[in-house]
Formats: sequence, C-alpha cells, structure tokens
Amino acid sequence: MYQNFNEMIKTIEKLKTDGMYGGDFFLTWEKTDDEIAATFAVADALRSLRERNISPAIFNSGLGISIFRDNSTRTRFSFASACDLLGLTVRDLEEGKSQIAHGETVRETANMVSFMAEAIGIRDDMYIGKGNKYMHEVSDAVDEGYRQGVLEQRPTLVNLQCDIDHPTQCMADMDHIIHEFGGVENLKGRKIAMTWAYSPSYGKPLSVPQGVIGLMTRFGMDVVLAHPEGYEVMGDVIDVANKNAAASGGSFKQVSSMEEAFEGADIVYPKSWAPFSAMEKRTVLYGDGDMEGIDRLEKELLKRNAEHTDWCCTEDMMKRTKDGKALYLHCLPADINSVSCEKGEVEASVFDRYRTPLYRQASFKPYVIAAMIFLSKVKDPASALAELEKRALPVRNFG
Amino acid sequence: MYQNFNEMIKTIEKLKTDGMYGGDFFLTWEKTDDEIAATFAVADALRSLRERNISPAIFNSGLGISIFRDNSTRTRFSFASACDLLGLTVRDLEEGKSQIAHGETVRETANMVSFMAEAIGIRDDMYIGKGNKYMHEVSDAVDEGYRQGVLEQRPTLVNLQCDIDHPTQCMADMDHIIHEFGGVENLKGRKIAMTWAYSPSYGKPLSVPQGVIGLMTRFGMDVVLAHPEGYEVMGDVIDVANKNAAASGGSFKQVSSMEEAFEGADIVYPKSWAPFSAMEKRTVLYGDGDMEGIDRLEKELLKRNAEHTDWCCTEDMMKRTKDGKALYLHCLPADINSVSCEKGEVEASVFDRYRTPLYRQASFKPYVIAAMIFLSKVKDPASALAELEKRALPVRNFG
Amino acid sequence: MYQNFNEMIKTIEKLKTDGMYGGDFFLTWEKTDDEIAATFAVADALRSLRERNISPAIFNSGLGISIFRDNSTRTRFSFASACDLLGLTVRDLEEGKSQIAHGETVRETANMVSFMAEAIGIRDDMYIGKGNKYMHEVSDAVDEGYRQGVLEQRPTLVNLQCDIDHPTQCMADMDHIIHEFGGVENLKGRKIAMTWAYSPSYGKPLSVPQGVIGLMTRFGMDVVLAHPEGYEVMGDVIDVANKNAAASGGSFKQVSSMEEAFEGADIVYPKSWAPFSAMEKRTVLYGDGDMEGIDRLEKELLKRNAEHTDWCCTEDMMKRTKDGKALYLHCLPADINSVSCEKGEVEASVFDRYRTPLYRQASFKPYVIAAMIFLSKVKDPASALAELEKRALPVRNFG
Repeated sequence: MYQNFNEMIKTIEKLKTDGMYGGDFFLTWEKTDDEIAATFAVADALRSLRERNISPAIFNSGLGISIFRDNSTRTRFSFASACDLLGLTVRDLEEGKSQIAHGETVRETANMVSFMAEAIGIRDDMYIGKGNKYMHEVSDAVDEGYRQGVLEQRPTLVNLQCDIDHPTQCMADMDHIIHEFGGVENLKGRKIAMTWAYSPSYGKPLSVPQGVIGLMTRFGMDVVLAHPEGYEVMGDVIDVANKNAAASGGSFKQVSSMEEAFEGADIVYPKSWAPFSAMEKRTVLYGDGDMEGIDRLEKELLKRNAEHTDWCCTEDMMKRTKDGKALYLHCLPADINSVSCEKGEVEASVFDRYRTPLYRQASFKPYVIAAMIFLSKVKDPASALAELEKRALPVRNFG
Repeated sequence: MYQNFNEMIKTIEKLKTDGMYGGDFFLTWEKTDDEIAATFAVADALRSLRERNISPAIFNSGLGISIFRDNSTRTRFSFASACDLLGLTVRDLEEGKSQIAHGETVRETANMVSFMAEAIGIRDDMYIGKGNKYMHEVSDAVDEGYRQGVLEQRPTLVNLQCDIDHPTQCMADMDHIIHEFGGVENLKGRKIAMTWAYSPSYGKPLSVPQGVIGLMTRFGMDVVLAHPEGYEVMGDVIDVANKNAAASGGSFKQVSSMEEAFEGADIVYPKSWAPFSAMEKRTVLYGDGDMEGIDRLEKELLKRNAEHTDWCCTEDMMKRTKDGKALYLHCLPADINSVSCEKGEVEASVFDRYRTPLYRQASFKPYVIAAMIFLSKVKDPASALAELEKRALPVRNFG
Repeated sequence: MYQNFNEMIKTIEKLKTDGMYGGDFFLTWEKTDDEIAATFAVADALRSLRERNISPAIFNSGLGISIFRDNSTRTRFSFASACDLLGLTVRDLEEGKSQIAHGETVRETANMVSFMAEAIGIRDDMYIGKGNKYMHEVSDAVDEGYRQGVLEQRPTLVNLQCDIDHPTQCMADMDHIIHEFGGVENLKGRKIAMTWAYSPSYGKPLSVPQGVIGLMTRFGMDVVLAHPEGYEVMGDVIDVANKNAAASGGSFKQVSSMEEAFEGADIVYPKSWAPFSAMEKRTVLYGDGDMEGIDRLEKELLKRNAEHTDWCCTEDMMKRTKDGKALYLHCLPADINSVSCEKGEVEASVFDRYRTPLYRQASFKPYVIAAMIFLSKVKDPASALAELEKRALPVRNFG
C-alpha cells in the first residue's frame, strides 16, 4: 500500500466527488481528475478494510444486475466480487433465457429487471457505435423509471467494456501502475508503450488500447501508441489522448514499430486488437445478417494479422525497455507463444516472469468497480469509510 | 400510497390470515377475501418500508428456488427481487444443467434442491392440465420431506404462472388498480374489460385472462370478458368468475366484440391468448412427440388469429372507454403496432401514453410475491411489520 | 440426533483438527481419524443449530465458486446450500460462458474467479487421472495467489466428486449410517455390502464405490465389495481399504456375487459403475477426439452391462440381509425397475420402502460440505460453535 487508511481518507476528503453521486461510469474521460483520483483512493480504502477483515458492505440487501453481451470470465467475476464486497447479490440477465429476443425494448427490460437493482454492469463491446449507446439507453430508462416512481432507487450503471472504452480494466491497470511505482506522484515523465501485438485470433475489441491512451495520458506520462498500418483506433480517442497529454504536462505520440515504442519504456502493454475500420465493416455485416461476408472478413483479418507476427513481446524486445525491466501489463488472457498458440502476443518466458504482477494487476478490478458504485451511492465517501472502519463488521468471524 | 403504514398494519390486524401460515399460493380463488386483502396490504407495507430505506428482511439466510419451464425475464426478476427483499438468495433449477432429464422423479428432485429452501417459485404454463398439477406434486413432496425430517423447514410454493392462473401477475395488476383508484372501496361498479387482442404470435398462455376474471370479479366491479369465437377460456374459471361476481355484488359478462367490451370501461386489459381447445390439442401433440402436428397446428392458429386483426387497442377503441381515459393494463411485453410487429395488440401512441403506468403496474409484482411468502412464513404479520419498522435496518447505509 | 449440542462440542474439543485449518478436502483417506470424526461432529452441530433456528453463518460476505464439469442437481444444490448456511453466495463458473475455452490456463482462471472466494467446489469425475489432478492444480494456484498477495484470502477447495473419491457423498452416507445405528460405537462388526448393480446406462463414475470402501473400512465394519468380473475399481483404493480395515479392526473382502455380499448384511449399497479399464480407455479416446471409438466403447459397455441384469436389488435379494431389513443406501438418482427404466439397479417396492431414509441420507450432504469449509476456516471449531449458539442469530425472524 502506498498510503495508510487515514491518508486515503484525507486524500478523499480533499477531492470533489459530488459529480459522481447518483451517476454512472461510462468513459474515464467524462470524469474529472478529482473523480479519477477519488476512484483509486476509494478502491484502495475498500481493499485496505477487507485486508484487515473489515467488511465495507454499504448494502444490507439489493441486487447487482449483470448483462454480458460477450463472453467473459474475469470481468464477470470482478463485477460479482465487487457487488459481494458491497453487500449486493448478482443476478445475470441472460438474453437467451429471457424474452428480450421476443422484441422487448431496452427501455422496458431495463426497468423490469431493476426493481431491487442498486447497480447494473454491462459488457457490450462487439459492435462499433452500439455498445456505449446501449448503455446510455439503459441508464436513461432506469433514470426515468426512478423519477416516475417505478423504481424505489436509481441503479448505478457501470460500463464493463463498450466499443469505446474499458474503464474498469484501465482503471485497474492504472491503480496497479500507481502501486508499482509507489504513488501517482512518481509517474511524471515515465514512458508507457501501448502497442499492438500479433494474435492468431481476430476481432478483439479496441476498448483496451483506446481506454489506455484515454486514461494514462492524464498523469504526466509519455504515452506511446504503436501498431502496424491499418490498425488505427478511433480518431475521437486520439483527440482525447492529445488533449489529456497537453493538460497533464506529459506527451502522446504515435509510432509505427514495436521496437521504437519499447525503447526505454517504463511500462509496456502489448496486446492485439482488430482494426477500427474492420470492426465498423463487421458491424454493418452483422446488421445485414451477411454471414458469408463475415466469414470472408474474418479470413482477410487473420491474413492481415499474419503479416505482423514480428509484433511480439519477446525477451529481445523487453531488453529495449528501461534497464530491460519495464513493467509488463496485459488485461488477460494473453496469447502466449507455444502455450495458448504457436505464435502470439508474448513469449512464454516473459509472461511467466510477470505472472504474479499480472494477477495483481487483475486483482484491482473488483475494488475499482466497487469504488465506482460506492461513489455513486455514498454522498460523503470519506466519512462513510471512516464509519465503516469504526463499525468493524468482520468479513470472516472466528477466523 | 392510499394508506399510511399504520393504517396498513391496522388493516392487516383485522384480517384472518392464519390459513396462509405455512401454506402455498396456487390460485387466487383458493384464498379467502381476507387473505387476498392481506396480501395487498402486506405488499404495500413492505413497499412502504423499503421506500423509507427500511429493510423488511425476515431471513438472515436461506434460498429461494426458481423453476422456470418457460422463458421469462420479468417474472424471473420479480421472484429474485422478492426473495432479495426478504433476505433470501435465489438459486435457479436449470433443468438442462440438472439430472432431471435422466429420469429423476419430481418428488426426489423437489427435496434434493430444498435443504435450505424457504420458497420455491415455479412457472409452468405451457401444457393444459400439467402446470398446476406439477406445482402440487412439488408442494406435496416438500411437505412430506418436512414432516419426515428430511428438510428442516417447509418451503413455500409460489405459482409464478400455471396453465390455470397467473396469481402474482393478476394480484400485481389488482394492487395497481387499487392504487390508481385510491382504494378498493372506490371500485364498486367500475367496469373492467378483459379482452382478447390480435397478435402475430401464437400459443400465448390463457393464465392471464383466466386469472383476471377469477380475481377481479371479487371487488364488486363489472367484469366483461370479450374474445372472438373459438378463443374460449377454461369453463371452470368462467364458473369461478360467475360465483365471485354474485358474491361481491358486481357482475360478470361475456361479449363478442372489443367495441362492446370497451364501451364506457374504466379499465381495459386487451391481450392475446391461444384458444383453450388449441392448447389442449397442443398438449396432446407434445405428449405424442408429434412435431409435424405441432407445426400444422401453429400454422392453423396463426391463420385463425389473422382473421381478427381488428381486435386491436387503437386510439379509436380507447375513445369508447369512460371519458376516453380508461386505465390501460398489460402484463408486458405487448405486441405494439409498428414497434414489435406490423400489426399487434395495441397502437403505439396508446401504449406510449400509458408506458409509465404500465411499468408501475409491473412494479407491484415483487412486493406481491414477497407478501405471499411473508404471509406463509410469519405467524403474526401485523406485529412483525411493526417490529420491522422499529428495527429500522437500512437497505442502504450512508446514502 | 445421537448427541446433544454440548456433547458434540465436547467431542470436537477432544479432536485434533488443526491439520484441516487452512486446508482443502480432496480424499477421505488423506484425513486422520480425528479429522473425519470432527467433520461428522461439526456437521451435526451445524444441523443442530439450524434445527433450532440459529444461523451458523461464519461469513458476513464472500463467494463460493462452483465448477461442475459434469451435470449435477443434488451436489450442485448441496454445495449452494452449504455455502448459504455459512453466509456465502454461490457463483457458478460456467465454462461455456467463460473464456476458458479460449486457451486460458487453469492457474490463471483459478485466481481470476477467486478475489472474494472463500470456498471452491469442483466436480470433475469423467476422466481417469484428470479430475483429482485438476483440483490440485486449482488449489495450488489459489494457494500461490494468496501467498503472493493477489488474493486477500485462501479459498478452501472441496472435492465435489473426482475420478478417485466422492468425499462429500460418502461422508454424508457415513453420517447417515452413524445416525441410523445410534452412534459410531455401534458399528463394530456390522456388515456393509458395496455392490455393483445393473444399469442400462454406461460410464457412471467409480468415485462412489471407491469412496465407500476407502471410508467405511475405518469404523471396524466388515466391508464387502462385489461386482461382476471386469468391473474392478482402482487398485490403489483397494490397498487403502485393506489398510483401513486392518487398522480399524474390521475387515475388507471382495466377493463375486451380489447374493454373497448381501448375505447377513446390515447395510447394502447396490449401485452401477463402469469398469475402471473402460473408463481409462474412454479417457484416452476423448483425449484423441475419437468419437467413433467412444460410440463403439459405449455399445460394448452397454452390451457387457446387459450380461448382468441379475445384479439387481430385488425383494428376494433383500431377504438375504440381516433379518431382511438391511439399511438400503443409494447416492441417487437410482435406476428403478419399471420406473426410470425397464430393468435397473433396484426393484420399485424396495426403493419405495426406503424413500424417506434415502432422502435423509442425502440431507446430510449440505451439512458435511459446510463442516469441511468450517473446519478449514475456523481455528477453534468447538468454541466457535459455542459462540454461534450464544450469538443466536435466527435463520428466520418472526416465524
């Protein structure tokens, strides 16, 4: 821990967080610097309580609703863990099981599942221009339901990955970085390389690279984005990154080789993604139900990927980083050479060396999600945390 | 709220509810008037507590088991919400995942899933003569298990829709009506029209129209049932409706046009259903595994439906109702013209105007289900509610 | 109950259980006699508390993770019930829904789902040499995650059936026997027959017969294993049974007819299983993806089974047992003649006569699982149980 509990509370006291009270968490760049800082501080405070066997449950009952429109293990369990930590029970909305397929509108379903819902977590990252929009529709629906007296409470929406951003992942990544470097004040001038890497699979969402450059440019770091030609991310997010870098006193740069990006980097994040234009094309094809077109696109994409198998986080590549010892990040699961595939994003020996830090990176996610919900539900987070410590409700009795 | 909390408690005190203690909830017409009134009053009292951030949890642990033999979003979440409200966690019995398909008997499974079960909610509405029977088999099984010491507690069975009745829906509908009209005492002489409406889908259960005429005839209202020829509901329920109407000082009438039913109505409930005789035929076909016969039947039914596309809740139809402003009800999801289908049960402008009341109608369901469980579990509901208010356990801390 | 609560606590006080603290439960023969005795005593104590409407919840929050690599109703609900009893909420890891199929390693997934996990229950019984091994991989992974600070707590692994043992089943069976015979001290010299029985299905796991002979030989009973030629169980477990019998002053014997096994038996456990060698062959075929080979093997096995339809627990067979009244056991569901199949493991009239005892046998499983978790989580189980009684938190309020 880079701060003790009282320091965390003092940090939170100084931050302006009332904009988060009663609100949702869609994109990190829609939040102020204070709100981002408070999310980290609350996440750390919740973790500190739990480490000392003190439950930070702010609910005595209530549901967390999860809606996953794409497969997920880690985010699914992170959301369930966050809800459990705060005293909520998760109920999955399985679209297969439900009547949504029968033509129900989003607005209606959102209210029908929310009578006891304190939080709604959604993953919808497959189609460009759709995921974030869908989340806003759900949020607007429950907002109206709450105002009209249909719902007794307004559920907090948490973006568990959309087509634009993956805020719970990137905030967890960032909290991990802060801890590894001993505090956010030690990050100024550090170089972080967000780079594309080869994968034999296709269609991986762009939300991680976009989320990373949209968030990590806010801390005075030198953020470098690298990918082969044709693997561009959304232009809007590039604009966000440039603005953030200017405001934070850091920099944002795009380069066209992994080597250049890794050169002297303090942190590297090599990860595959699909080209934005291909994802756009795929969205249209799905909309048209053109399955043949999708097959054709998939083959094209895999072929295009295969031209860049040299974009791999090898031991040689790692040697280019600061003292050869950059912090290696991945959102997991990674495509590991000779483990999960023949050739992939990372060499097995590199991955193995960073296994524990990678797991620790992931371990911040439940706390970050819990912090997002906490800040939406609690008016005065600093004093609530102090009270929770004083209440000292144990997670485990008789341990 | 048409009553304050103390009035609700006084209402409950005067009602004889010991017949519900330790019992199940299968059909509304198996309950006395006092029991029906108490269910509404307890539902309202539970809601009143929750509105004031007071948890009405009567359990500190325990499971609610849900068994859905047909798709469901809203009822599934309503049951989960009701259980959560009372302190139970829901566990779904997924027949696909389980060994039921391997020839297990109902009796055995019912006990095996009930070791910590305080409530069992079942939806089984597809086959005539089966659903309600299955629920009784489950109830008998856990009853015997409890008496034999296999189970420490006797789970309460709640009918979440069978082939005969949909009590949680119709009780929620009724509670909504009571609230909209400012109390049950204002319902005498009101006209309610339960009418068939066209839908391009087929095989919708009869449990809603049956449940509505079986329940709403108990409050002195003039209940009218209307449907095209061939769309008759179960004769037994017609008998129930007639008896209820006579006893309550209201009336029950069947007419053969939507226009006549809507004429001067205070409340309208236009909704599609399949003809009882067709559902009976389908049950036999499924029993015989005659999939070709089912396909043929489906086509016949859709064709027959299509002869009645004029049974639609249009703006013109609504004008026939009392001051053109009848309360429009639907159990949702509705088939909305030009929204969920080309032609359906209701015009979009009508549906839109009633959207918030419709959602509010649905919002009573979790509380009604919770009240059914509450009255089965709590010996003295009035004093328990008073104690819950005094205990003042918050749903949300630090809000 | 064969003991009152205070006696149970005194029994537990005298037993050495620190070996279970922080540990897992894989195989019964890896546990000392004291640990086995403590598991029964704690199970009974937890049940005694619950019977008196006292919650033995030792957790105020936390998840139980269930991983079922084979279908299950009863064990799935038993684990969920045990978790609920102790205050945990169950979250299923559905491999279909998750990214495990995408090449994730066991080690990674085990940590990713365990951030709030206090217990992990796994059923993996299909492939010889795999299930138990997989459980150890999961256990090692979370152990390392805990030591590295990835996880705040170390989840307890409970074997819900592997290729070698089915400890939660056999411990529940044994607890049932102890209760039926009025205490473990009354079991010396009793004869128990674990026998193969005919079933028209194939590939049933060997974990029950193996678990039974590996456990029941520890109590001074005369344990007899009987099966047709070719239906041998694992040799290692035969060794365990022999050693146990010698140490406990009982006996272990293999015979080749059901008649001989039933002769004078106090307890009979007739149940189908697949030959060990066939299960080994099947494991290889699955590994090779040889579906044709699997089909062929299935046909062979069914044909081989069909040569032994006389291995059935008939009324005549039961007459051979002690006074014709042996306690009949089954892990359920049973293949019942003319009920679940034409010819099967047991005659319907025998099964019917023992239905309630069979359900009671099953009812011990949630408590046994809870006891396994309890003993792993609680340092001083006797005083914790005393405190729980004193805390007197009701399961149900206002009952």
